[in-house]
Parts: sequence; C-alpha cells; structure tokens
Amino acid sequence: MQQQEIKALLSDMSLEEKIGELFQLPSYFFNGDMVTGPAGELGITPDDLRVSGSCLSVAGAERVHEIQQRHIEKHPHHIPMLFMADIINGYRTVFPIPLAQGCTFDPGLAEKCASIAAREAAAAGLHVTFSPMADLVRDARWGRVMESTGEDTYLNGLMAAAMVRGYQGENNDFSKKGALAACLKHFAGYGAPDGGRDYNTVELSERTLAEDYLPAYKKAIDAGCALVMTSFNTLNRIPSTANRRLLREVLRGEMQFDGVVISDWCAVSELIPHGIAADEKEATVLALNAGVDIDMASPVYLKNLKELAEKNRIDEKQIDESVLRILTLKNKLGLFENPYKDGSEADEKELLLCASHREAARDCAEKSFVLLKNEDSFLPLKKGKESTAFIGPFTDNQLLYGSWSFFGDEQDCVTVKAGVTQNYPDADVFFAQGCPTADPGTKVLGFQKTPPKEEFDLQEALDTAVELAKKADKVVLTLGEHRDYSGEGASRADITLPSCQLELFHKICEVNPNVCVVLFNGRPLDIREINQKAKAILEAWLPGTEGGNALAGILYGDSSPSGRLSMSFPYCVGQVPVHYNHLSTGRPFAGDYRTTRYNSKYLDIPNEPLYPFGYGLTYTAFEYSDISLDSDILHKDDSICASVRVTNTGERPGTETVQMYLHDVSASVTRPVRELKGFCKVFLEPGESRVVAFPITEDMLRFYNITMDYVSEPGRFEVFIGSDSTTSRKAVFSLC
Amino acid sequence: MQQQEIKALLSDMSLEEKIGELFQLPSYFFNGDMVTGPAGELGITPDDLRVSGSCLSVAGAERVHEIQQRHIEKHPHHIPMLFMADIINGYRTVFPIPLAQGCTFDPGLAEKCASIAAREAAAAGLHVTFSPMADLVRDARWGRVMESTGEDTYLNGLMAAAMVRGYQGENNDFSKKGALAACLKHFAGYGAPDGGRDYNTVELSERTLAEDYLPAYKKAIDAGCALVMTSFNTLNRIPSTANRRLLREVLRGEMQFDGVVISDWCAVSELIPHGIAADEKEATVLALNAGVDIDMASPVYLKNLKELAEKNRIDEKQIDESVLRILTLKNKLGLFENPYKDGSEADEKELLLCASHREAARDCAEKSFVLLKNEDSFLPLKKGKESTAFIGPFTDNQLLYGSWSFFGDEQDCVTVKAGVTQNYPDADVFFAQGCPTADPGTKVLGFQKTPPKEEFDLQEALDTAVELAKKADKVVLTLGEHRDYSGEGASRADITLPSCQLELFHKICEVNPNVCVVLFNGRPLDIREINQKAKAILEAWLPGTEGGNALAGILYGDSSPSGRLSMSFPYCVGQVPVHYNHLSTGRPFAGDYRTTRYNSKYLDIPNEPLYPFGYGLTYTAFEYSDISLDSDILHKDDSICASVRVTNTGERPGTETVQMYLHDVSASVTRPVRELKGFCKVFLEPGESRVVAFPITEDMLRFYNITMDYVSEPGRFEVFIGSDSTTSRKAVFSLC
Repeated sequence: MQQQEIKALLSDMSLEEKIGELFQLPSYFFNGDMVTGPAGELGITPDDLRVSGSCLSVAGAERVHEIQQRHIEKHPHHIPMLFMADIINGYRTVFPIPLAQGCTFDPGLAEKCASIAAREAAAAGLHVTFSPMADLVRDARWGRVMESTGEDTYLNGLMAAAMVRGYQGENNDFSKKGALAACLKHFAGYGAPDGGRDYNTVELSERTLAEDYLPAYKKAIDAGCALVMTSFNTLNRIPSTANRRLLREVLRGEMQFDGVVISDWCAVSELIPHGIAADEKEATVLALNAGVDIDMASPVYLKNLKELAEKNRIDEKQIDESVLRILTLKNKLGLFENPYKDGSEADEKELLLCASHREAARDCAEKSFVLLKNEDSFLPLKKGKESTAFIGPFTDNQLLYGSWSFFGDEQDCVTVKAGVTQNYPDADVFFAQGCPTADPGTKVLGFQKTPPKEEFDLQEALDTAVELAKKADKVVLTLGEHRDYSGEGASRADITLPSCQLELFHKICEVNPNVCVVLFNGRPLDIREINQKAKAILEAWLPGTEGGNALAGILYGDSSPSGRLSMSFPYCVGQVPVHYNHLSTGRPFAGDYRTTRYNSKYLDIPNEPLYPFGYGLTYTAFEYSDISLDSDILHKDDSICASVRVTNTGERPGTETVQMYLHDVSASVTRPVRELKGFCKVFLEPGESRVVAFPITEDMLRFYNITMDYVSEPGRFEVFIGSDSTTSRKAVFSLC
Repeated sequence: MQQQEIKALLSDMSLEEKIGELFQLPSYFFNGDMVTGPAGELGITPDDLRVSGSCLSVAGAERVHEIQQRHIEKHPHHIPMLFMADIINGYRTVFPIPLAQGCTFDPGLAEKCASIAAREAAAAGLHVTFSPMADLVRDARWGRVMESTGEDTYLNGLMAAAMVRGYQGENNDFSKKGALAACLKHFAGYGAPDGGRDYNTVELSERTLAEDYLPAYKKAIDAGCALVMTSFNTLNRIPSTANRRLLREVLRGEMQFDGVVISDWCAVSELIPHGIAADEKEATVLALNAGVDIDMASPVYLKNLKELAEKNRIDEKQIDESVLRILTLKNKLGLFENPYKDGSEADEKELLLCASHREAARDCAEKSFVLLKNEDSFLPLKKGKESTAFIGPFTDNQLLYGSWSFFGDEQDCVTVKAGVTQNYPDADVFFAQGCPTADPGTKVLGFQKTPPKEEFDLQEALDTAVELAKKADKVVLTLGEHRDYSGEGASRADITLPSCQLELFHKICEVNPNVCVVLFNGRPLDIREINQKAKAILEAWLPGTEGGNALAGILYGDSSPSGRLSMSFPYCVGQVPVHYNHLSTGRPFAGDYRTTRYNSKYLDIPNEPLYPFGYGLTYTAFEYSDISLDSDILHKDDSICASVRVTNTGERPGTETVQMYLHDVSASVTRPVRELKGFCKVFLEPGESRVVAFPITEDMLRFYNITMDYVSEPGRFEVFIGSDSTTSRKAVFSLC
C-alpha cells in the first residue's frame, strides 16, 4: 500500500477500531472467542478481540494462520494483526544467550544468529521480535544480564545493530521472506536496577545516561530498528512508560526514531503501583501522552481510551498518530498484501533445526565459550591418552537454554554427554551427575517445560561421582546455575554456586586434583572457591541447542576457545557493581589491598574483579609488540593509526581478540579509566604474526563535557592495546 | 573588629599574605620551623609557614598557645591562625559514634554531646571542628556510615542542625567561651559511593540529589554552620572540589551559605588523579573558581596562586573574596581580640573527662543502644538470681571508640568488664575473651594508639570460654568489628563478623543456648547467623568512654534500652543498598520470596532488611490505638492532626519512640513508599498511656515534581504511625 492509502484507511476507521490497533493481547485470548479464568475477568469481549491490532506470544504457522484468518474476516476493515513474540536467541534452534554472544566479540556472528532466528520465526508466522536488548549491565545480581551483551557501551552498540540487521534483513526491508521487524528494548536504563533487583528503581545522572546507556540503543535505532519497547523501571523517579521527555524528546527527537513504541508487559497499568497514576484512566493518559503506541498484554488502553477521547482528556490526534505508526509498520511488513507473511508449515519443516542452523548454533556456542583458567595446558583433553570422568548436574542435562527460549524444545538440546559420546565415540570417558542443579529443598521458579528430575539419593550420587573421579585421569566437572536462576525476575543476592555443587567440587578435588570446571550459567558468578583449586575453568554460559557438540569440540581441541568476557566476573557480590570502565577517582588504588587504607579500596578484597571484561585464554600464546603510532599528534579532521604486531608463539593455531582502549587523561569532567574503542579478531597459525592496526579519529574522543556538549577536548590521551581490558601496553598521543 | 576594619586589613595585605590565608597545614609542620621527611619534600619554607592562615589537627592549650604566639609574632600583620580538627563525637570525653547518636532519635542529646565536645576542644585551644557530617548513607559496605546519623534525610537534618547548635552555641555566637565554629561535611553526596567503596564515584540524578541528599546539609546551613567542606567524590563526573555549579549555584546561591568553604584533605591536588586537572596550576584554578576558599593539608594553592594571579589566570578579586570570608570567620571567633580564644590548661584540667561530661557520655551511650531481639525477656539479667559469663573480644577491651576519635585516649574508656564489676560488685559473673577481635593473620589498618594485644593461644582462649559458658546460667557474648574496620578508608565487601568470632558464637551456643550477643561495630552487619540462635541481641555500636558503664546499666535493667536503628541492617551484603524509604516499583512484592518470580524481588532473600530503620525493642510492651485524624482533608494553609494513644502494657517503665511516616499515593513522579516526617519519644510507666499527636501540614508533602518544582500535589496521602518504619497502622487523608 502507498502511505496515502494507509492514511485513507485510518480516516475511515472508527474510534473503536483505532483504539483496537493500540491494544495487544497474549495468545491465550485467541484460543477461541471466549476466555475464562483470571484472563476472562479482564472483561475482554469478542468485540474487543475483533479489533485488536496485535497478538502476543503465539507462534506456529498453522495456528497463526488460523487466528489471522478469523481475525481478518471479522475486522470491520479486515486489518491483519501483528504477531509478536520474544525471539531472543533463536526460535526453535536455540543459540547461546546474548551475554554469551557478547563474548564472541563478533557482531557478524550475532547478525547471523539473528537472521536464522528470524527465518525460523517468520516461517512460524511471526512478524515482530522483542529483541535486541541493548541494556548496559554492571551488576551480576540482576538476572537479566543474561539477555544483554554485557557491560560495554561500544560492544553493546555493535551487537544491537548487528542483531537488527540480522532480524530485519537487507536494507531493513523486512517485508522480504525470512525477516522480522525488530523491537529494541528496554528504553531506557533497565539494566541498572538498584540493588540488582529486577524492576527496581534506576538512578542515573543525565550525563551517565547519555554517555554510557543511550549510545547502544541509538546504534540499534540508527540500524533501522522498527519498534522500541519501554522499560519497566523508573528512571530518576519517572517510569519510562510515562516518561514524556525520554520518549518524545530523546527517542523521537534526538534519536529521530519514527517507529512504533510498545510498553513492556502490562507496564501501562503498572503506572498505578508506581504511584504516578491514580487509576487506569490516568495511566492511559500518561502513557499515550508520553508516546506509547501499543499497550502490551493489557486492556487498559482499550477500556479507557474511548471515554478519554470523548471527554477530550486525550486528543484523538494522538491516537491517530499512534495508529498511523502501527499501520505503517504493518504495511512495511507487507501484511496488507499478505497477512500471513512467511508463515508456512512446509518452511517450518524445512528450516527449523535444519543442519545449517544447527551448525551456526554450534559455531556460535564454540566462539562464546571463555577459557578462564588453564594451568599447565590442562585443556585440551588428550584423546586416546587419558581417561576423563564427566561429572556434574549439567553433564546429562538438556536445560542448556536461557530462560527466555519459549519456542525452543529442550528435547532438541545436545547434552554434554551426547556431545562427547557422539563426537568422540572412542574416548575413554565415564559420566555421573554427582548432585542436583539446585540445592535440595530449593524451589526453582520458572517456565521450564520439563520439570527437573532431581529426586534421587544425594549421598549415592555423590559417592558414585567420587568413585568415578578416582578412576579417571582427569575430571571435567559441569557446574553452574539452573537456567531459571537467570533471566527476567531472577535476581540473586548470592551469586555463588549452590552448596551441593560446591560440596561435589571439593569432594572430587580431594580424590583427584586434575579437575576442569565447565560453567553453565546466565550471569557472572562468584567462583573464588572453584578458582583456587580447579586446574582449568571454561565458561560455557547457556549455550543452546548445540551446546554439547560445541563443548566436546572445544574440550578435545578440535576447536579452540576464543571467547572474551563481555561482563566482568566480580570477586564477590560485595564488589558489585564492578566494570572495567569505571571513572578515575582522586585516590586510585592498585596493589595489595591488605597494605594500605586511605585509598579508594576495600579492606577485605581487591578492587579488581576476579576476571575482567575482555579476558579469555586460548590454547596457544600470543606475543604483542609495543604499540606503534604513526603520529603522536591527532588533528581534528585527520586520523592516526595505532598498531601492534601480534605473533602466535604457541604450538597451536588460535584466534586472538586484539582490543584497543582509549583514555582521556584530563578533561573538563572525570572520564573512565579506559574505554573500548576497537577490537579485531585475528586467526594465527603457530609462528604466524600479523600487524593489527586501529585508526583513531577525533570522534572516538568525544564525550559529554562540563556543559553537556558532545565534543572532544584537546589534550593528552592514552591508547592501550592488548588481550583484555587490563593491558598495560600503552602509547600516548595528543589531540590538537 | 568591625567589618570595615577587616576590609581595611585585607587591602593592606600583600598577595603572599592573602594566599597564606587560603593555605592550611597539618600539625607536624608546626613542630618547629623545619619539617623533614616526605612532608619536608613538599618544599614548604619557614616563610610559607609565616603566613599560613590555619593549622590542622593540633590540640592542647599549651601547644596551640605556643604555635599561635610564635605565628602572630612572625606574621607581617600579626593575623592569628585558625586551629581546626576533627572533633566528631567528642574530644577527650568520647561519645558514641554519630550513627549510634542517630539511634537516640534525640537531637537535643546530640546537641548536648556536641556542646560538651566543643567545650573540651575549645579549652584545648581549638576553633573549628570538622563536624557535623550530614551525608545520607544507604550502603553498609561504606566504612564511613559510622560518621553519619543514618539513612533518613529528615533525621539527619535534625541531627546535623542540633550538632551545629551544640558546637556553635547560642545565637551562633561562637566567640563565646566553649564554642567552636562548625564545619558541615561533605558537600555533596559523599555517602553514596559506587560499590560502597570509599572515595568512589557518586551517581545521583538531580532530583534525588535535591530530594534525598541536600536537605540535611541545608538544615545545618540554616542552623548557621560557619564552614562547609567539599567531598572527595565526583558527583555525576565532576569532583565536588571543582564543582562550580554545586558550590556557587547550589551552596552559595540556593542555600545562601556565606561562610568558608574548605576542601577535604589534599582534595585540590586530587583533581589531577580525578582527571580534570592536568597539573597543580589547573587544579588551583578549578578549585578556586568553584569556590573553595581553603586548600586543606596541602601547599597547592600556596605554590601556585601567586603565579596564576600575576598571569591573570586567576582574578585576584576571587582571592580577596576568599580571604575576606576567612578573616570574617576569625573575627567572628574573636581571634583578633583574643587569638588563643578559650585555650586554657586550667580549663583542660577542669573540663576534660569531668564527671558531668562522663555522665552525658553514659546517658548518650545508653540511649543509643538498640535492642534487636529479646526472646522470653532474656534481658535484663536478673541480679543475684543467675550467673552470667561475659565472653568475647569486646569484654575487656578499651577500643570502644570510633576510628575518628583522635583526641580520645583509650585508657579512659570503661570496658564492659569494668562497667559490670564496678556497678554490680556482687553480681555472679565470669569473664573471658574467647577469641581475638580480628581473624588471626588479618592486619588491622588504622591509627590506633594501642596496638592490639591479640597474640595468645587461640585454642586455649576458646576452650576457656566454652568451659565458662557451661558453668553460667547465661552468656553475654560481646562480638563485633574492630573499630578500625569502620570509618574513613574502611569499606568492607563482606559485612559479616570475623570467622573466629562466629566460631566462638557457635561453640558457646552448643554448650549454653542462653546467649545474648552484644554487638560493637561501626556499621550495620549481616548478622543472620547470630540472629538464628541468640536469645537476645543488643546493638551497642562504638559507645565511647562510658561504654562499659552504660552497657552494665542496660544489661542489669537499671536503665532500659530505647534506641532505634538509624540505618537498616541488611539481610546480607547482596541486598545493599537497602533503605526503608525506597521508591514504589511497578511490581511491588512482600511475602515469601520462595513462592513467586515476576515481581521486584530476589530469588534467594526477602526484599526486607533483617532489621529495618526505626526498629528497636524495649524492656516493656506498648500498645497503640488506631490512628485518629481530626480531619481527613488537609487544606493548603491549614494543618490536620494525626494522633494515637500509646499505652505501656508491660511491667516495666520504658520509652517508646513513636514514629510518623507519610506516603504520597499518586504524584507526578514516583515517590518513596513512606518517609519519616515526625517522631516523639514518650516515657511511660507500666499501665500509663498518652496521646501522641502529630500535626501534618502541607509543607511536609512537598517534593520535586515532574518539572523539578518543590511543591505538594493534591491527592490522597497515607499516614503511618507506629514503632518502626514497617508499621502497617495507617490512616488516609486528602490534600485539597
């Protein structure tokens, strides 16, 4: 349709129809025309459903087709619905959680995963995905760090933009087959809840919001993201869903976003408990005035807008604006021509979990694993030369999906055991569970389809594992968090491993010190105890469908670990929030924390995280030359180049992630001690070397200065290049 | 002197002399005319000393007299120096730490303590104290919570103003005998360092700064506080010591402060590591332009201002303004007439530690103790009817002063053992240390004069204690943190008790379940383990000189506990920051955290602190009537009255601290769930009852609204009245 036709359609719609477009219901309302139970008590009538603009969380070509067909028939103007769902890290083929994807430092790979997710979801009839999440995260207590790509503004921006490209396809023409419209979330600052507690208050200065939090959202918007979701939190005491300044001035104004804004689940009605709306009517006025087009999963707009418009408490023009944006999105998706878009049972059969999708999932999982420790080249395991006991609750466990993988089926997941036995049938291996995932008596709250089968004799499981460990040359111990310990609503005050797992670890170490721990988890954990005794630690996150295959390849050395931490592992929970790019203090401290007092430090722990952002080992070794600068003076419209020669000095091929950080030594406001401004993954054979060069331009040096202007300031800068965020390899240049 | 004479003096001073006024050195420079060692390397010459305007941390009438006399003789205009020092909670007579004083909920008492501290310090020749500290604190990891009066804006404001009155005396005429000029600190926001790490970055929105943090400073300024100290931290990336907007617009403009601004220790030079000044010259320009009059403990102003003024990088008028403020302060202190002010060896002999001062210290300590738990009326101990073993590292320990009690002598401190034996010579008691204060191998960093004598046989100490516990009817176990575990530079990531103390606790409980724990500490601790087993818990903080006497009286029931927590005890460190007056979320939660997920909560702990703000038991019981409102409609210029009848239904007299909280149900921005707006301490005999009435006026309902105007908004409000911040006793009214 032409935009003119859309406008004509709009002007022909009744107020009820227009309000319907702003109304979205979850899938269970579309089971028939009647809904019973608590949902039924919302008072939604078949007439309401008839005009609803979108449908949430239903998928599957046949079912979507049936609902859409019935809907179009009944709708006075036969306007098709949008079908939206959380396709976070894969649809049926499940990829590693976004935090793990961040560890790939490979936006191209994230784009590919998103593109496959879109292809599968589109075949299942979907139009819109609630991804990417570009929320910056610095507090491991927050369960939803799982869904972010980490603590770095620059990396998050690249990842979010890559995912938008992956979902929306070439030129953002998401009418094309296999594309989805992407919905960026959660605008804004959702990743910084007080105390790491989900949905809690967010407090950010204007400067930090602009400097650290907004840029990644902006990158996704610049990449053409079609929708934006508001965040649940208050930002400086204003809930985002009613934050007129944030949505109208910042998002639509400064960021020039012209797509659809949708609330998060029931967030419009949550303005009442937030204490800024006395009732649903006021909540409706606030949210619509702030610029929220669609009221997700709730009938608050639906039940109140008509009366508000009739009483002129809402300007009908505002409703029209919102409806126009929604109709425009539908049109961009081509729904007026083909309301079913790519939904196709045949395509579902062909695409879902197809070999190439599985292969991509395996590739992404391999590249997301982070080798944290590898004493005496403990890994890779030596095929045929040593026996290995695979022990732990994640060894024969299909719950390796992040908690937001609604459409993944755990039955498809390749376990560690399956990965090892299928890929290395001749390996000398034994398997034992050792202990449950969660401590006995702990109720795991979540959506998991397969209830945990963990009712067994604890002592027997432990004894069996210990006996196995005695026999084996090496132990690979799979430990971590139940997947429902991370994700939405899964904040943890204690970020250590469950006691039963720590007991297993210590018992195993007593009988066999040759222990490698493989961690499955959705957030950085306090792993001090593990770190002291384990010979090797491999962070595997929640790796998705192909987790077991990917892990087997890495453990046996057919692939090499190359992931780097996208989020620092705190020393302990008392250190959070911890992030590499903190500001300079007046009393900086590094060194032995036990020796001095009157610096910015703790009495009882170091300032540094246990493992920092950007950190990760490989199976080989890399040497860096000093940094070479082609000029130590950067002129405003010019660029200089900082380069290093990187050499693989080890005995195996490997991929090094060369990272470039900048530091503004003195400015009109305090600046971070360093900030990632570039990185480059280089694959090198043993003995091979390569020069890695980073151009440095003036725009990389910009920040919000004392007057909140986004500028660079002349002066001295430091450039650091190395293998993680703590590198001391440094050169100095000046900006004139 | 008349102000005209001051101005005439100023115009007669050389630039060097004027710069000297802005210059302050620590006491060790005044030992003679020569300073050696690292301090000598600062390049300070006798000529520099000759013009210095103030002297830091020297005290004692004789010594101050000698330095002042020599100084006046040598100074070209014979201008006397200001003598300044940290008189935080007492001079020689040491009162409970400020956090404990907060627990008295008795500003009059805090005023009295400040007044005594001033009298003693003035006799010792001092002119200015670096107190009160009005920093709001919400994170128990920060060591300096010890020096704050807690987590509540309203209580902190009352306390800070009371202390100013106490120090400065009637009508703020601090020229009068026994008065000091007070220096409010730390402006601004120092109490909110990221990660609870001292000197670290502070991030606050304009609204939260204005709403929660600034009001307590404002109360101290309105009370007439003569000086203000800048804080070490950056506030939204601008170090306070260079924050022109904060110091000139907020402090001098909005708050109308016209006194002297002083930096914190070396904070001007710290602008260099903060990364906003390239060198000392730039640091000097920034700090002076921002409005910092005196450069504490550093020669940065001294060494740089002259050249900067001569090269016109600094306007000499700015120097003149600062000097005028300092001379005005000296004049207000009467130093031009009597440069020694109240310094008098005779007065020192008479006043320091005199009986009435000790009595006040005992009174304040008693009223600051908070009874957290008292199962089956375990306390008070029954004299003559039961035997008691006093066990623990704080039993016979004089280190009961907060870490900032420079002029207190620990030898004066009454230990628990001495308090018990001297006050109750016939009591059936035994004493044992049981374990050291700090875990063996832990180095305690601080200024303590008496190095801890803790080299003894650990096993023997434990065994002795256990044997003693077996014999006794009851055990009073004194546990806590070494006093150098709190205070400046003493952030802790782990806020539990040391392992050796927990071991002692569990071992004792095994042989005698009748255990009361008395806690000595400078911050709220994670006391979950203690809380599970101890029959009674009494929080004694760091109670000062009369700690042992005060405690004995409370334990044996000659006095009754009446303190209320000025800061919540977090459930564990993973819960911080936690405070009762948090904002409403969209998904509030209360109840069993193990039962649900998608609310603002943790998976593994409750949202509520272990013991909340305002909480504290007594030896009796109080019953409250429902709240009676004389009107449920409040008109803007009127007031309404909320009252309750409180009855002592127990068998002992007691003091109840009746607390009144307000909640704005719906406003243009999200509001705290409740805020303390009034309290009243009532002493009631058994069976006695009294009506406690709180007027509610419109100004109590004001806040920074959506447009940052400080207004009230009509609507519905809740008033809660009860014995702590969690009370559910509620009434509702409307503001018209």
